[in-house]
Amino acid sequence: MAAEIAEQPDAVARTLRALRPLRGELRRLAAGTGLVTFIARGSSDNAATYGRYLCEVQARRPASLAAPSVATHYRAAVNLDGTLAVALSQSGETEEIVATLRWAAERGARTVAVSNDPDSTLAAVADLALITQAGPELAVPATKTYTTQLAALTELVAALAPDDQAFDAAQARVPAAIEAMLASAPAASLLAGELTAMSSMVVSGRGFTYSTALELALKVKETCSLPAIGMSHADLEHGPIAVVGGDTPVLLVAPGDGPVLPGITALARQVAARGGRAYGIGGDGAFAAACDAVLPGPDLPETLAPLALIVPGQLLVEALARRLGLDPDHPHGLSKVTQTGGAMTRPGPGGP
Amino acid sequence: MAAEIAEQPDAVARTLRALRPLRGELRRLAAGTGLVTFIARGSSDNAATYGRYLCEVQARRPASLAAPSVATHYRAAVNLDGTLAVALSQSGETEEIVATLRWAAERGARTVAVSNDPDSTLAAVADLALITQAGPELAVPATKTYTTQLAALTELVAALAPDDQAFDAAQARVPAAIEAMLASAPAASLLAGELTAMSSMVVSGRGFTYSTALELALKVKETCSLPAIGMSHADLEHGPIAVVGGDTPVLLVAPGDGPVLPGITALARQVAARGGRAYGIGGDGAFAAACDAVLPGPDLPETLAPLALIVPGQLLVEALARRLGLDPDHPHGLSKVTQTGGAMTRPGPGGP
Repeated sequence: MAAEIAEQPDAVARTLRALRPLRGELRRLAAGTGLVTFIARGSSDNAATYGRYLCEVQARRPASLAAPSVATHYRAAVNLDGTLAVALSQSGETEEIVATLRWAAERGARTVAVSNDPDSTLAAVADLALITQAGPELAVPATKTYTTQLAALTELVAALAPDDQAFDAAQARVPAAIEAMLASAPAASLLAGELTAMSSMVVSGRGFTYSTALELALKVKETCSLPAIGMSHADLEHGPIAVVGGDTPVLLVAPGDGPVLPGITALARQVAARGGRAYGIGGDGAFAAACDAVLPGPDLPETLAPLALIVPGQLLVEALARRLGLDPDHPHGLSKVTQTGGAMTRPGPGGP
Repeated sequence: MAAEIAEQPDAVARTLRALRPLRGELRRLAAGTGLVTFIARGSSDNAATYGRYLCEVQARRPASLAAPSVATHYRAAVNLDGTLAVALSQSGETEEIVATLRWAAERGARTVAVSNDPDSTLAAVADLALITQAGPELAVPATKTYTTQLAALTELVAALAPDDQAFDAAQARVPAAIEAMLASAPAASLLAGELTAMSSMVVSGRGFTYSTALELALKVKETCSLPAIGMSHADLEHGPIAVVGGDTPVLLVAPGDGPVLPGITALARQVAARGGRAYGIGGDGAFAAACDAVLPGPDLPETLAPLALIVPGQLLVEALARRLGLDPDHPHGLSKVTQTGGAMTRPGPGGP
């Protein structure tokens, strides 16, 4: 996991280089469509959450996260004319994702696959495949396949949006920004030392950093076997803040500026006022002052910050797993290619 | 909270009676629209999750859950022509929900409000208001305002869908099915006794019962101050199942039959095989046999079961809070009308 975290600057740079030439083809495929619906599970679903914000804010198109059971279990004849369906799976072989993308095509959608394997079933099913260039990922927790998915989504949305040279210029700075984040490893290890006694954790963000919070909560659950709740800070204020305190700290993920930052900073203060501990990733000076400890974030605009903000969090989770005596590369009981939800029609051993 | 749980059969019956005459008006408003987007937070957002499945499966329309910060913080000029925007808020005064519905209307959407107050700002902003008939809700945790929101959504979707006499007939049986669930109070109290030592909990469902799982997880967090993770069982299998075991049991919510039930039953067996405890609400005999204990569910089709499946869960949470020495009516630090996310533009004390 540590080695794959360190490979991310190159993996993201390779992915952006490989996908940029597809912008024209993406535009032609998406012409005439409106709604963009993302189909994914697990870390890929957290990448899709980033994609939905980027799509709505940068490309001004409505976006949604598909509910795969509507396709795989209820077989609903939803009208998807005028929809662009984007399925994400690092292996490209998760059956329910493949089945849901096939269903979307049958229901009238145009289809895009985001996968790390050009020979995968998902890539073959889609009208157009965006192949991430992460290389083989050996650790069970997704790291470089996640950030390269985010990179692919920046290219997808750049194709859907009006030309934006500032966005393109910032996108070109992403690999260096990720590289800079690797320097937070010693601080992440120190912070992990403060967290070893926690019984559970809340991870929160808002807007673009909501996806980062969800992904970090998933990493804590699967790598450290600790209950971690990922949620928007707006939802957290709406009742669940009652759980923060005692052995349950909150980890807040904040962009360096922008409209959501003051609210996230206020939330850190609110947690402290309630006697809880708030830790941070990213943000500005006021945010750092409101938190018990902070891992610095990247010098990127908010729309692209999630590609780098995840990295200090990955380092934190990896260090925490080791301090807890766990092997972050092989969390117990989990396998790399996950098959979900096929209980009704579970395939034989010959299935993909 | 206990008194308001018991009022639900009447509250839902009143709501269905009041809204049925609006079916024609809803149809006219929705004519020509495609995507249905739900705007909500907290318990209302969990109701919206039910609405999105019901909308896709019963009315065959694509549905999504809006990200309010896209409107309130990023002020994105998303094209919502041909969209039906449905905002849910029991008070009808949560600013970000009102602001997001206003934004949707400005961006081209037709708008519906679901609120418990006919004089609320939200009801005034919408093209059409569906007023739930819950009566005043005094306990902080939403119970009857939640189930009456679900009832309103069944009417909304019935208006969007082709005529379906079987659905209408089952809908008429919902109040009696909720009434029957109240008999599970003694069993819920006994089960609460088994859960007092838990440090956290995972609550899981799939398809239609996913919304029930999210709502129960929220109830546990805000009423019992315990970390509870609500997630689809497909996502749970995809990594986070590592957290189940020891002091973290799983509570599974299952329909009485249908395509997702075998998978939920298999998950209960998987949890047991990993040495964890699985408790259930609903399901059939095989599901009960796979769980450590089960609270029975209603005699309703899967599409309507969430209106009654939540009730044994509400009884369980209420009993658990009392056993933990907490006042379920007044969880510490929470207020009834929640304002979220307005940190940038927090109103003065005169604000709504």
